[in-house]
Amino acid sequence: MKLNCDMGESFGAWTMGADAEVMPYIDMASIACGFHASDPLTMHRTVQLALQHQVSIGAHPSYPDLVGFGRREMQLSSDELHSALIYQIAALQGICESNNTTLSYVKPHGALYNKMMIDNATLMTVMQSLKDYCPHLPLVLMATPEAEQIQKQADSMGISILFEVFADRAYDDEGRLVARTIEGAVHQSLSQIEQQVRQIVEQGTVTSFSGKVIPIAADTLCIHGDGAHAASIAELCSRITS
Amino acid sequence: MKLNCDMGESFGAWTMGADAEVMPYIDMASIACGFHASDPLTMHRTVQLALQHQVSIGAHPSYPDLVGFGRREMQLSSDELHSALIYQIAALQGICESNNTTLSYVKPHGALYNKMMIDNATLMTVMQSLKDYCPHLPLVLMATPEAEQIQKQADSMGISILFEVFADRAYDDEGRLVARTIEGAVHQSLSQIEQQVRQIVEQGTVTSFSGKVIPIAADTLCIHGDGAHAASIAELCSRITS
Amino acid sequence: MKLNCDMGESFGAWTMGADAEVMPYIDMASIACGFHASDPLTMHRTVQLALQHQVSIGAHPSYPDLVGFGRREMQLSSDELHSALIYQIAALQGICESNNTTLSYVKPHGALYNKMMIDNATLMTVMQSLKDYCPHLPLVLMATPEAEQIQKQADSMGISILFEVFADRAYDDEGRLVARTIEGAVHQSLSQIEQQVRQIVEQGTVTSFSGKVIPIAADTLCIHGDGAHAASIAELCSRITS
Amino acid sequence: MKLNCDMGESFGAWTMGADAEVMPYIDMASIACGFHASDPLTMHRTVQLALQHQVSIGAHPSYPDLVGFGRREMQLSSDELHSALIYQIAALQGICESNNTTLSYVKPHGALYNKMMIDNATLMTVMQSLKDYCPHLPLVLMATPEAEQIQKQADSMGISILFEVFADRAYDDEGRLVARTIEGAVHQSLSQIEQQVRQIVEQGTVTSFSGKVIPIAADTLCIHGDGAHAASIAELCSRITS
Repeated sequence: MKLNCDMGESFGAWTMGADAEVMPYIDMASIACGFHASDPLTMHRTVQLALQHQVSIGAHPSYPDLVGFGRREMQLSSDELHSALIYQIAALQGICESNNTTLSYVKPHGALYNKMMIDNATLMTVMQSLKDYCPHLPLVLMATPEAEQIQKQADSMGISILFEVFADRAYDDEGRLVARTIEGAVHQSLSQIEQQVRQIVEQGTVTSFSGKVIPIAADTLCIHGDGAHAASIAELCSRITS
Repeated sequence: MKLNCDMGESFGAWTMGADAEVMPYIDMASIACGFHASDPLTMHRTVQLALQHQVSIGAHPSYPDLVGFGRREMQLSSDELHSALIYQIAALQGICESNNTTLSYVKPHGALYNKMMIDNATLMTVMQSLKDYCPHLPLVLMATPEAEQIQKQADSMGISILFEVFADRAYDDEGRLVARTIEGAVHQSLSQIEQQVRQIVEQGTVTSFSGKVIPIAADTLCIHGDGAHAASIAELCSRITS
Repeated sequence: MKLNCDMGESFGAWTMGADAEVMPYIDMASIACGFHASDPLTMHRTVQLALQHQVSIGAHPSYPDLVGFGRREMQLSSDELHSALIYQIAALQGICESNNTTLSYVKPHGALYNKMMIDNATLMTVMQSLKDYCPHLPLVLMATPEAEQIQKQADSMGISILFEVFADRAYDDEGRLVARTIEGAVHQSLSQIEQQVRQIVEQGTVTSFSGKVIPIAADTLCIHGDGAHAASIAELCSRITS
Repeated sequence: MKLNCDMGESFGAWTMGADAEVMPYIDMASIACGFHASDPLTMHRTVQLALQHQVSIGAHPSYPDLVGFGRREMQLSSDELHSALIYQIAALQGICESNNTTLSYVKPHGALYNKMMIDNATLMTVMQSLKDYCPHLPLVLMATPEAEQIQKQADSMGISILFEVFADRAYDDEGRLVARTIEGAVHQSLSQIEQQVRQIVEQGTVTSFSGKVIPIAADTLCIHGDGAHAASIAELCSRITS
């Protein structure tokens, strides 16, 4: 199972994330495209860092909301979202090409990611954007109970999907993420994370918040690139998944 | 001689330029890339308008300065400018690809265009950006007395150049544009414009502000897409050049 | 009844609205504060234009969304919205002071205006922002069937309210605006507008979309500053209300 | 001698500077106003932090350049700069007022600060902005050999000046800052900083890069709020100056 992590989320003079420390351990770097974070030079440097560690590069497009870091829902029309996605993916693809590499996947960010998982019209616009610009690139989205239905939509549009699970997030009995507002929604200890990742990799299941063991089929494991222990967690997950 | 014109310089709810009226008469549409004007959806619609009229599409990248419309000089480092150019050109290239077309050239905008014409380091960064991302795309710049030297630099980097002249701008005795701050720097009457364009096309010369006839070698003629008579001027120039 | 109109919605090189033509006829100019439109220099010039015509100046703050013109709902936290409102109102107040004048009211813009009318938490945040920065300034909002309840909330916070009606919008039987998506929601003819404004001013009622006469109590009449007939409509409404 | 320090330079989700650690030791907090750093909510929180430690608040306005952190020279017209300054100062003043406090001074940031010190037209525009909006607020600028002439200009406009020296910057024989590009331009060791600050406070002189002792008259000492030792340096300087 491949490790994916958000990268390139610094902006101008501001630093975010321990990119240099985490990059050696991951397989897929989801690089911000300038709408919620990053800027052209940061993107260029992050692409070079990924190349240095033979990490696949994915586009991590967002709603246009720098000050809100793409975490605030915005009501874009389908046309606005479609063009905004292609703009961002293509901008990063250009920076990849100028470094003699290319994009490997697309993973929407933040509020757009969340919206896409609960609003089918948004998901369709995301898929249509890939179909129109980069039908060969897989779309990363959350492993959910609706995976089968999503897979069918993707098949009908000629898009491939990579389902992801989270190393440090608690799941409920239906296999959905526990909301961050609930205590315990994010695993804080390395041992909790290790236990969850081992179970996903070795048994294809997670133990829910209430103790129920539920099956979860995933192609990639998402870890976080910031926080005090980002590099340790990345190293740990890398050992388990490789 | 091909007619080129800035297009797609609306931004969100704000309209600029008579794109729909002018597009039928031009050969090359230089489309803004979101840093001085335009936004992803405006770019998408402008690409579609260009396609409808079989007009070649060029990227029109700028300094990042929406409120100043890219007309204010900014001191970007060479690295910042390099990445900013590739980002913008690639974003528009992606929107072209999603519309089954492709870019045909690059023409920097505003203060960047002016800077590039007087500062060789900036010009070299612009050329390097094309070399690194799109070496097959010609760079549009001003026909000046330094054309030969610029051509040599371009040759050495494997970049091709399209030199442009202006339909409505007065030239001085050295073949440079008269500064806009000087009265008479911009031809206001259709007959003046017609005379200048005919002379460029038929004789390869312009008559300078002081009355001197000077040779000018150009590949493309730049007209303006805004102003009350934009469409009339476009139609007139189109008749003369075709 | 006072005429209010959105003003100062140009941005940098882009023009919007016929401010110079409309300003002579209105009583209250709601000036954009840089988050959905306007920029510091545009604000300065619009304040000067208002002063020239003895028009009261109001702040017209918005969600931070230039490319969407503040018309797209955004999920700001209460804290974010509170600070964003005070920032914008105060910025315009400063530009007023530097021109030896002062703000007279506050009217939220676009998606924020609409949200405030249907979401009480948002309305409370707006009122709290005024209470904390400018409790002496009235808040302009829509005359609705909930006016009495809103008035009570405002009273309890020490904020005064100016209810507004619209010259060119159709009302439903409950006294709410007919959604713009429905045909006939916006009166297009001068005679329709004239009829509605006369009825509001002379009888304190509007005739709804379905023909029902309903009472409407308003302090100010909102007209629009763009559109082909903006100045004519302003002149007409000015004659009726004065 | 008062200690001043740039504060509130975080932006949205990005943190910059050790504001909470440094604030207890300083006398004057120069708070960013949203054009090079900060956002309304960050400004609000930084004002509250300053209040908690009884620190005077100054506006720290900039060119409009978030991605460049206001460090890149931009060619604003005098009118643009004038309005941009008043907009920023007033926005922070409003946030102060909503927290029952008020601004105490203005200190331009970054490229604007540097430009103002070498370009008299820019300095005059800065002074005019204060004169038009806040003539009671002192302007902080660099103690230079031209101090007397600057003081005269300020007197003639009714503006007061606070000259500042730098705790960690090397000076040349004329009493100007050594350019950052030269090695040794920024003192790295605590003992060097301590020596320079003691000499400024006790003797009113600095020892230049080449070893010459030169007089320097200053009202306030500038320290930096980021870097690994920001709080230690602040504590040290606070002890010496109080």
